[in-house]
Amino acid sequence: MQASQRSQVPGFEVMSILARIAELRTAGEDIISLTAGEPGSGAPPEVNAAAARLHEQNTVLNYSPALGIMPLREAIAEHYRRWYDVEVPAERVAVTTGSSGAFVLNFLAAFDAGERVALARPGYPAYRNILASLGAEVVDLDCGPEVRFQPTPEQLDAEVAANGPISGLMLASPANPTGTMVGRDQLAALTDWCQQNSVQLISDEIYHGITFEQPGVSALEVSSEAAVVSSFSKYWGMPGWRLGWTVLPQHLVDPVSRLAGNVALCPPHGSQLAAVEAFSADSMAFAEAQLDDYAAARTLVLDALEEIGWDQVAPADGAFYVYARIGSHLEEHDDAASYCTALLERAGVAVVPGTDFDPVNGQEWVRLSLAPGSAAVAEGLDRIRRFHAQ
Amino acid sequence: MQASQRSQVPGFEVMSILARIAELRTAGEDIISLTAGEPGSGAPPEVNAAAARLHEQNTVLNYSPALGIMPLREAIAEHYRRWYDVEVPAERVAVTTGSSGAFVLNFLAAFDAGERVALARPGYPAYRNILASLGAEVVDLDCGPEVRFQPTPEQLDAEVAANGPISGLMLASPANPTGTMVGRDQLAALTDWCQQNSVQLISDEIYHGITFEQPGVSALEVSSEAAVVSSFSKYWGMPGWRLGWTVLPQHLVDPVSRLAGNVALCPPHGSQLAAVEAFSADSMAFAEAQLDDYAAARTLVLDALEEIGWDQVAPADGAFYVYARIGSHLEEHDDAASYCTALLERAGVAVVPGTDFDPVNGQEWVRLSLAPGSAAVAEGLDRIRRFHAQ
Repeated sequence: MQASQRSQVPGFEVMSILARIAELRTAGEDIISLTAGEPGSGAPPEVNAAAARLHEQNTVLNYSPALGIMPLREAIAEHYRRWYDVEVPAERVAVTTGSSGAFVLNFLAAFDAGERVALARPGYPAYRNILASLGAEVVDLDCGPEVRFQPTPEQLDAEVAANGPISGLMLASPANPTGTMVGRDQLAALTDWCQQNSVQLISDEIYHGITFEQPGVSALEVSSEAAVVSSFSKYWGMPGWRLGWTVLPQHLVDPVSRLAGNVALCPPHGSQLAAVEAFSADSMAFAEAQLDDYAAARTLVLDALEEIGWDQVAPADGAFYVYARIGSHLEEHDDAASYCTALLERAGVAVVPGTDFDPVNGQEWVRLSLAPGSAAVAEGLDRIRRFHAQ
Repeated sequence: MQASQRSQVPGFEVMSILARIAELRTAGEDIISLTAGEPGSGAPPEVNAAAARLHEQNTVLNYSPALGIMPLREAIAEHYRRWYDVEVPAERVAVTTGSSGAFVLNFLAAFDAGERVALARPGYPAYRNILASLGAEVVDLDCGPEVRFQPTPEQLDAEVAANGPISGLMLASPANPTGTMVGRDQLAALTDWCQQNSVQLISDEIYHGITFEQPGVSALEVSSEAAVVSSFSKYWGMPGWRLGWTVLPQHLVDPVSRLAGNVALCPPHGSQLAAVEAFSADSMAFAEAQLDDYAAARTLVLDALEEIGWDQVAPADGAFYVYARIGSHLEEHDDAASYCTALLERAGVAVVPGTDFDPVNGQEWVRLSLAPGSAAVAEGLDRIRRFHAQ
């Protein structure tokens, strides 16, 4: 018996690093992990209180409707009104099992096997791996620092001219691992290009709210054809609750509705009932209050870059990552993976090599997560400094 | 812009019925719904208590490992030791986002696009719809009452002789919608056939525990190559918690592990932490105690069959459904869908037409769910009797 060809997606370097961190901690080592995109804050207290009440009362949690409970879909629609001044009917909002569930549903609903879908490299590796496992052809756009790691209409034109039409474009702003964002004009240029070329745009806006210079622009502000994906995992600090959403263009509402009942049945019902409280004034204030510490952590890293010999060649406008080239350290270390291993084993601080995000050029890059907060980041930077001084 | 071809899965009749029930109830009508496979009990109190504690303490719920937390994987492995006397290493147990998550992962890991996967008709419609959306070719096995709605090696031989080899067999025991089970000898004959023909067996055992004559036999008792799928949704009454599992054959462990991180990240973390309590003595006793009421409801229906003119042609050994042919009523009603509509609109009781489960012959069948319990079922039967007497 053999597994399928399509299950042969690459493993993540980060998984072996996380496993090694767990081993070292079990052995009593004090490890600073700046690896994962997991906020240390936890959910807003009102969300936890609502969840606690549900369970104290032994509430029967049956299946919810496949696209989620209407009060949450309405609260999300209202959130778009408040944050973006965009009118989205609740019927176009589908609650999903994390943003992961939203990607699977959108990719299935929008793309048939064999269709070409473009995305920026570096980028979040699950995009390419889900697309590939579903039979789409992943079209890499080599997006270096010169384009701030984001695709451009010119690149897309060149790709189509060279290799034929594409059916989809996956965009992320703020992006993982680079934190770069596309501004309103750039986003409008991309959505216009997609519309002219009959290309389905899927816009990952999961890091909206976590921005340092200016707020994120939603694809919904400039297009009615884009599918937007977001989540309670990052801004609201709820990754383990597995709750996200997608705002669908009209032509994908029925397809996603039919698919969702089959591939997922429904998102976690208790998480949904509690998450209605995520939009209360107190919960929004709680989420917003986390930003100060991410910003402090970001400043610590930016101020230390030159000293630690990391070259951050595009600003992290948002999200909680710094993606940096470690050029000068490659004389001593073969590649980013060896550098990260040495940092972990000899200095007790963990960051992630860029190879998970960019299989071509990532061996010269690392990603540091600010999500553990400024105290952990300060200690991590001290350890990195001492490691380099050894 | 258009949706994909593969998103054109059929809608479920049950969805329009559920929507109509909601409308009628909103309008103040008293409706008995014997439609959904949702236990009325809710989760065991200890599971709810554990979940309430988590949230009271504002526990930070980060991502869990992709295959779930080890204490839950170990508790599930121990469950196989206790219930089936089967030794399963926890490393082969993957916690999933409901059984839905387990199906998606197993189908992706085991089958490439274009491979042929066989399943019984009637059956749970999501099997065929997920498989089709992932590009597999669904091979219908016409399993009528004469084979108790379950596939046989002879049928599989005939299918292969007529149309070529198959790569997979989807089995469900107890089955939805029929409740029929395959005994140990029949299961061994099927697993032997699969092994001889290099066919991946996927065994849906989600209704194990809810059995009326004898306990369910797990495919793990007779094969080390089968993938088994189960869930906390039915026996433990936790459908909205979105927590299931799969016990994988060795050759699918790494593929599922890689895929799970990409397509789902992890199952709901809070549900996992709480579900460890589902295997306590008190929780098992709570789950077991629900069976008496399902059994009482089942007896009520079986005793009423002749009177209401429903022909149940194979015994419901387990699960909480009765699947019956409504032959005599087809003189007055065009098909099961019209019969169900009339029952709902004129008698205020909802059951589901067989067409969702069997697109070929289902128009002569209905499925009644015992899950709402004996009181609801008794009232439902009274309404059905009065409807027929009108």
